[in-house]
Amino acid sequence: MSAPRHVPIRLGQVGGGSGAFIGDVHRIAARLDGEFRLVAGALSASPDKAAASAAAVGIAPDRSYDDFERMAEAEAAREDGIEAVAICTPNHLHVPAARAFLGRGIHVICDKPLAATLQEARELLAMARGTRAQFVLTHTYSGYPLVREARAIVARGDLGRIRVVQVEYPQNWMTDADETGGDLDWRSDPARAGAGGATGDIGTHAFHLARFVTGLRLDRLAADLGAFVPGRVLDDNAHVILRFAGGAKGMLWCSQVAPGHENGLRLRVFGERGGLDWCQENPNVLWHTPQGEPTRRLTRGGPGTSGDGIRVPAGHPEGYFEAFATLYADAARAIRTGARGLLPGLEDGVEGMAFIAACVASSKADAAWTELPE
Amino acid sequence: MSAPRHVPIRLGQVGGGSGAFIGDVHRIAARLDGEFRLVAGALSASPDKAAASAAAVGIAPDRSYDDFERMAEAEAAREDGIEAVAICTPNHLHVPAARAFLGRGIHVICDKPLAATLQEARELLAMARGTRAQFVLTHTYSGYPLVREARAIVARGDLGRIRVVQVEYPQNWMTDADETGGDLDWRSDPARAGAGGATGDIGTHAFHLARFVTGLRLDRLAADLGAFVPGRVLDDNAHVILRFAGGAKGMLWCSQVAPGHENGLRLRVFGERGGLDWCQENPNVLWHTPQGEPTRRLTRGGPGTSGDGIRVPAGHPEGYFEAFATLYADAARAIRTGARGLLPGLEDGVEGMAFIAACVASSKADAAWTELPE
Amino acid sequence: MSAPRHVPIRLGQVGGGSGAFIGDVHRIAARLDGEFRLVAGALSASPDKAAASAAAVGIAPDRSYDDFERMAEAEAAREDGIEAVAICTPNHLHVPAARAFLGRGIHVICDKPLAATLQEARELLAMARGTRAQFVLTHTYSGYPLVREARAIVARGDLGRIRVVQVEYPQNWMTDADETGGDLDWRSDPARAGAGGATGDIGTHAFHLARFVTGLRLDRLAADLGAFVPGRVLDDNAHVILRFAGGAKGMLWCSQVAPGHENGLRLRVFGERGGLDWCQENPNVLWHTPQGEPTRRLTRGGPGTSGDGIRVPAGHPEGYFEAFATLYADAARAIRTGARGLLPGLEDGVEGMAFIAACVASSKADAAWTELPE
Amino acid sequence: MSAPRHVPIRLGQVGGGSGAFIGDVHRIAARLDGEFRLVAGALSASPDKAAASAAAVGIAPDRSYDDFERMAEAEAAREDGIEAVAICTPNHLHVPAARAFLGRGIHVICDKPLAATLQEARELLAMARGTRAQFVLTHTYSGYPLVREARAIVARGDLGRIRVVQVEYPQNWMTDADETGGDLDWRSDPARAGAGGATGDIGTHAFHLARFVTGLRLDRLAADLGAFVPGRVLDDNAHVILRFAGGAKGMLWCSQVAPGHENGLRLRVFGERGGLDWCQENPNVLWHTPQGEPTRRLTRGGPGTSGDGIRVPAGHPEGYFEAFATLYADAARAIRTGARGLLPGLEDGVEGMAFIAACVASSKADAAWTELPE
Repeated sequence: MSAPRHVPIRLGQVGGGSGAFIGDVHRIAARLDGEFRLVAGALSASPDKAAASAAAVGIAPDRSYDDFERMAEAEAAREDGIEAVAICTPNHLHVPAARAFLGRGIHVICDKPLAATLQEARELLAMARGTRAQFVLTHTYSGYPLVREARAIVARGDLGRIRVVQVEYPQNWMTDADETGGDLDWRSDPARAGAGGATGDIGTHAFHLARFVTGLRLDRLAADLGAFVPGRVLDDNAHVILRFAGGAKGMLWCSQVAPGHENGLRLRVFGERGGLDWCQENPNVLWHTPQGEPTRRLTRGGPGTSGDGIRVPAGHPEGYFEAFATLYADAARAIRTGARGLLPGLEDGVEGMAFIAACVASSKADAAWTELPE
Repeated sequence: MSAPRHVPIRLGQVGGGSGAFIGDVHRIAARLDGEFRLVAGALSASPDKAAASAAAVGIAPDRSYDDFERMAEAEAAREDGIEAVAICTPNHLHVPAARAFLGRGIHVICDKPLAATLQEARELLAMARGTRAQFVLTHTYSGYPLVREARAIVARGDLGRIRVVQVEYPQNWMTDADETGGDLDWRSDPARAGAGGATGDIGTHAFHLARFVTGLRLDRLAADLGAFVPGRVLDDNAHVILRFAGGAKGMLWCSQVAPGHENGLRLRVFGERGGLDWCQENPNVLWHTPQGEPTRRLTRGGPGTSGDGIRVPAGHPEGYFEAFATLYADAARAIRTGARGLLPGLEDGVEGMAFIAACVASSKADAAWTELPE
Repeated sequence: MSAPRHVPIRLGQVGGGSGAFIGDVHRIAARLDGEFRLVAGALSASPDKAAASAAAVGIAPDRSYDDFERMAEAEAAREDGIEAVAICTPNHLHVPAARAFLGRGIHVICDKPLAATLQEARELLAMARGTRAQFVLTHTYSGYPLVREARAIVARGDLGRIRVVQVEYPQNWMTDADETGGDLDWRSDPARAGAGGATGDIGTHAFHLARFVTGLRLDRLAADLGAFVPGRVLDDNAHVILRFAGGAKGMLWCSQVAPGHENGLRLRVFGERGGLDWCQENPNVLWHTPQGEPTRRLTRGGPGTSGDGIRVPAGHPEGYFEAFATLYADAARAIRTGARGLLPGLEDGVEGMAFIAACVASSKADAAWTELPE
Repeated sequence: MSAPRHVPIRLGQVGGGSGAFIGDVHRIAARLDGEFRLVAGALSASPDKAAASAAAVGIAPDRSYDDFERMAEAEAAREDGIEAVAICTPNHLHVPAARAFLGRGIHVICDKPLAATLQEARELLAMARGTRAQFVLTHTYSGYPLVREARAIVARGDLGRIRVVQVEYPQNWMTDADETGGDLDWRSDPARAGAGGATGDIGTHAFHLARFVTGLRLDRLAADLGAFVPGRVLDDNAHVILRFAGGAKGMLWCSQVAPGHENGLRLRVFGERGGLDWCQENPNVLWHTPQGEPTRRLTRGGPGTSGDGIRVPAGHPEGYFEAFATLYADAARAIRTGARGLLPGLEDGVEGMAFIAACVASSKADAAWTELPE
């Protein structure tokens, strides 16, 4: 008998302790649809930090670990052990951690890039083929409804044969030399991040997005990687020209030294019969130009789209939930501490009613000026 | 002793059964930061629908009710009863439901507009002043970080004295006459929606946004409300001119018959020394023009902003969590059923590593064409 | 026999002496298509300024006047006298000047607003009905190809019956109090500018644009005009709600105290079956939303447009000529003085050829790095 | 004694007969500022077409030629002969024509690319060094005020050392195979267009723009050119990676098979201390991001710009003159034929005055509804 939908999947987490951006992202994403419940974690290799982080996110002390091997072993032995694990460590630990859980039949949701080297990535693939556990790589951008729409448009042949693929991922945050503290630490260390800097960190996202939408296999490439900040070991900028199987060509540019771009992932696909344009900075819009016709502005869930994977009707853009959740978070604080901050309350409600009443009264009086009732 | 942060607040819900858009929004928002846990509900006045909806969202059968009065009574009597309730009913039930819970010291998070009439709104306000329970009205748009930033900019005087306030909220979804089914039912019924149609549904949002950001008190207004679709009772379009205390003037336009606009809430504020422009369709950008200087593009958490209320660093726009959560939802389905859909997996990871390896190899060979390793 | 196209019409000009922005605009516009030749003028009421201005624009001394009455008389008497005149004076002189020329059968091209008072405007209309001379009011914005396209879309019924018309014209240039010098002088003087400040200067443009595109007759309005800068006599901001014959409603906002807007004329028209959106700040795009379909991005001369009135094929935006003309102006200076400034020259041409040669050579060598030939 | 400004330079034209887009562009650009007067031409190699084209543009029959050599000889011999010539032929005639005029001391304004081969370009350069005549290559985009502003920003060091240069020029007009008629003829013929297709036609514009703004010398490149339409001989798409002297890197993409882009020339420049972004499709805006500060929206002639080369004050965008000129062209037609078309006239003027009067009256009556006076 399959579990009823409302019993959340028991989730563990490796890495992602206090201060790690991506750890929070995984936890919020896991919570958003109510499908997972975080019950165990090895959030840090430092025992103190692991324990404190676990407490902060509501993991019981006896299910907080400081070693993912021990965690895998212990959780696999429990009747109520985790069914899935989210891996949010530095890149070089992705494969060892994934092995530990996959080997015990625990599903893995893993950050990208998959590994520090191609070799260990392949070994993991071979090993995983022997298990029944799921492996999910979090290429976030393939989760946007309009990216999936773009994929469907290409797949059903609306663009004809694809000719040109332009993908870019510019950021600005490594423009300056100051790289102390935070994630920058391991990201600029080849031993932990792997051979690619910007290429591994964001180039792989761009590459996956191009692959995901077009379905084209990349045949060969010519790349010019470089580091513009003196002393930086890994690339912070990469220019790559692409040739796909079947004759399509393209370009990929990723950069972390591009002032003016915060997170400018953009994909354009051009075929015999039309073109597509999507940019993550405004993910609610997909531009589709059938050759010889006006460009169409497709919106998430709007006319001309499938509406698959839409949580709310068209017109409530991505981000709506976060604004709404901020009110809930503020409400929680108000409930716990009495501090209301910027929360709308009853006075606002009364004022809103007064506004409606005045509008209706004024309109009935032929738009006469009407004071708001006290 | 205050409860530790990680113990979620016990939440109930009134209204919001299957098929109600806003019920889902409340649940997702409540989950996103992990601050609430939904444990009880009167999700529908129809017993069958109430029970089915409760089961679908994981509420235990003994805490599913079909009457909010009974729910308030029963939950107030339990030691583990709800601490807060989310009210998502049609407008005319907001006040009775709020009374039932506030009267028992249960915090209320309530949808807008507050009431069907100004009179009952005022009575609720008077009654609430006698309780210690919190009341939160979910004016969503005040939860956007850049709306709060706009408020701070005005508050610290950067615009000088405010002169002109332009706010608009155009939508397209009531352009056509066909209004059968769904929410349209009660929304076009004055007895349940109140005296305002578009004015109550979205005009109050626009009004609150203008008030929230400028802090100005609205002194009087002149309004021209109308319904363009034959047979429609409540207004679907409202033109309102505004005079604020202190001399500022403005306009408010809300419409549900404006093809081309899905959810186009936009606020512009002009003062002696500068102007602001924010639109909910791209909520990650706030335009600030100090008079006589170039317009500045402020981004959520970016340079020149406070960064308050930001869940992730600048550059990961509103909506990022939803894309991420879609991968988690797909993962849950894969885990439960084996169906992977569009989920990235190990093969994608290996390919990504092959891409990095090819980039590095090509670049080392002076951008020689390099095949992707198999 | 009608004159062959290449014989330009002999044009005179009243007002528009040195330093007057709109005088230059008229002269450039008259020259652009080669249809007019400026041969006479009363460019200023000050004899010295009139003579100097005439010399600067190439008007022969004997056809420079300091009084438009005398000019009309003298030119009407010449065999090679002007056929048409451009009137670019302050508003209160439009009607007297127009009378002087129309009365002598000379065509008039006149700046807006037509007059300082409604009464004299009507008198001019009555008087003009007795002449065969043409009268043209330069409502510039009706000259944009996509504005004419919008008009055609409405006229052929693509939007169905029009319901809502939103037009706005915000500017920032009168935000500050300092109003000395230049055009501001007469513009803030009711005797010379007429009763409307922003209303007359830009509100009439907005009004005409709405009328021009929709064809709807304005039935009544309710207006709130104000001046925000202390001491200013005429309005610098106007909020107007509109009711058109036939039931459409609308709003017009014009302002000259709106920091962030330089010249933000925008018109939106919503009907039963669709909507339109055009903004003068990016005049090459017209957004058309057929209700229930994706929004279409129409471009000047692009697919789905008539292409009427296009000087160059689609894709060369408005403004292209000005950039091109700047090169010609620079060339004239180089020819006259030898100073090349930023002009591209032969070296640039050789470099461009070297670029092509290197591209072709590199591509033939399978994208090998190729140095640019010296 | 230098000629007074108002005596236009006598201009001839080679190529650009009826039906040639770029011929019209040169003529309009030459007229716009009143600095040139077209008096001679060899507009076509076909005598009939040359004569008819000359008549259509107002060139006297005795100064219409069908051979540029003869034209150069004859004009050089006249006392009132041309001082400058605009060369608008197919690419392979640029150099021979330029030689003919430069050799006689006549200034040359020539379309790009300079030549069909690098070799003849160099020979022309050598030859020109011996003359005092000016040579101007019409790289249009360097004429935009904000492109010159971008150049100034880089030149004064605001971006620090340049690191990355991204330039692209996508068009859609050769997406389909049908290439009959018009310019396509010679453009797809290597003997007349030269070795580069898209590379020569638009790639050289992109290259010049990057050079013009950054001042960087291109050191080497790696290019992948291709033709996607079967049977096409010259490239319709080019991917080029760039290395500049001094260490900057970049990419150039030009394509004529990119549906969704009409004329999408865009340049981005990133340096140690900031970035720039300009796109020809909205040439009135230049984005400047000082690293660590909000992005600034610079507008033509607006705050923070030099205002050099601005014909009208900020806020009247590029394209304004063309709209204005359309009214003048319509007026010419009305004057010649009586057909008014869409021209605003007296009735519009009266209506505008009625609008102002109604606004003022309504506002004085506290925004009472006011009918428009008849």
